[in-house]
Amino acid sequence: MNDTPDWLEQIRWDERGLVAAIAQDADSGEVLMLAWMNREALQETVRRGIAVYWSRSRGRLWPKGERSGHVQQVREIRLDCDGDALLLRVEQRGGIACHTGRRSCFHRRLDDTAGRWEVDAPILKDPEEIYR
Amino acid sequence: MNDTPDWLEQIRWDERGLVAAIAQDADSGEVLMLAWMNREALQETVRRGIAVYWSRSRGRLWPKGERSGHVQQVREIRLDCDGDALLLRVEQRGGIACHTGRRSCFHRRLDDTAGRWEVDAPILKDPEEIYR
Repeated sequence: MNDTPDWLEQIRWDERGLVAAIAQDADSGEVLMLAWMNREALQETVRRGIAVYWSRSRGRLWPKGERSGHVQQVREIRLDCDGDALLLRVEQRGGIACHTGRRSCFHRRLDDTAGRWEVDAPILKDPEEIYR
Repeated sequence: MNDTPDWLEQIRWDERGLVAAIAQDADSGEVLMLAWMNREALQETVRRGIAVYWSRSRGRLWPKGERSGHVQQVREIRLDCDGDALLLRVEQRGGIACHTGRRSCFHRRLDDTAGRWEVDAPILKDPEEIYR
């Protein structure tokens, strides 16, 4: 007997057992971050209704916002055509997804004339305040 | 002497020399697809102003839309806080990013009550017509 749900096995997990997960603000459409999930993380996400990722650096489940309070309430979970990427449409608690205190993790824009990445998004809250 | 631009080396390329790249419709905010780039793909993207990915399955550069005509004109390229994901804000030629003829590749939504992925986006153009 196999108690892994069928929908979970339709995902093309990579050789590490992970799938990429994009978090998008469900209201503004802003792309907030890219993280990774394993089977357990995705099942926890569905069960709890908040984004739970797999932290590759820490090697453990990572309920987003566990320290900062910047939890992501999941409105829907989408899968792409070849089954190897997820899109989470979320409500971002606190309006801050990034550990730098910015709204989105994608806060650097390529200036290809100058040949550098330019930060163009404000810090909404001091990280020292977020993580103290 | 090293002729690799500095901005390119600020990206945390993975062990395969790749970085994940999200394409987002610059006008609607819709997330269209997730693909991969190597250094050459990203440099070509910047040089040509259209999205050029690295096809992992074909093991070669993949100028998006080379057969379908569904080219992605790149308006801006963004990098995330830990440098291992790109966000491309694009104009999607033909309004179709997916090889299935749908607007976005993320056309399946998890119905967690029924326990299955439900396709909820229409086919805008028959793939046989796109790729003939």
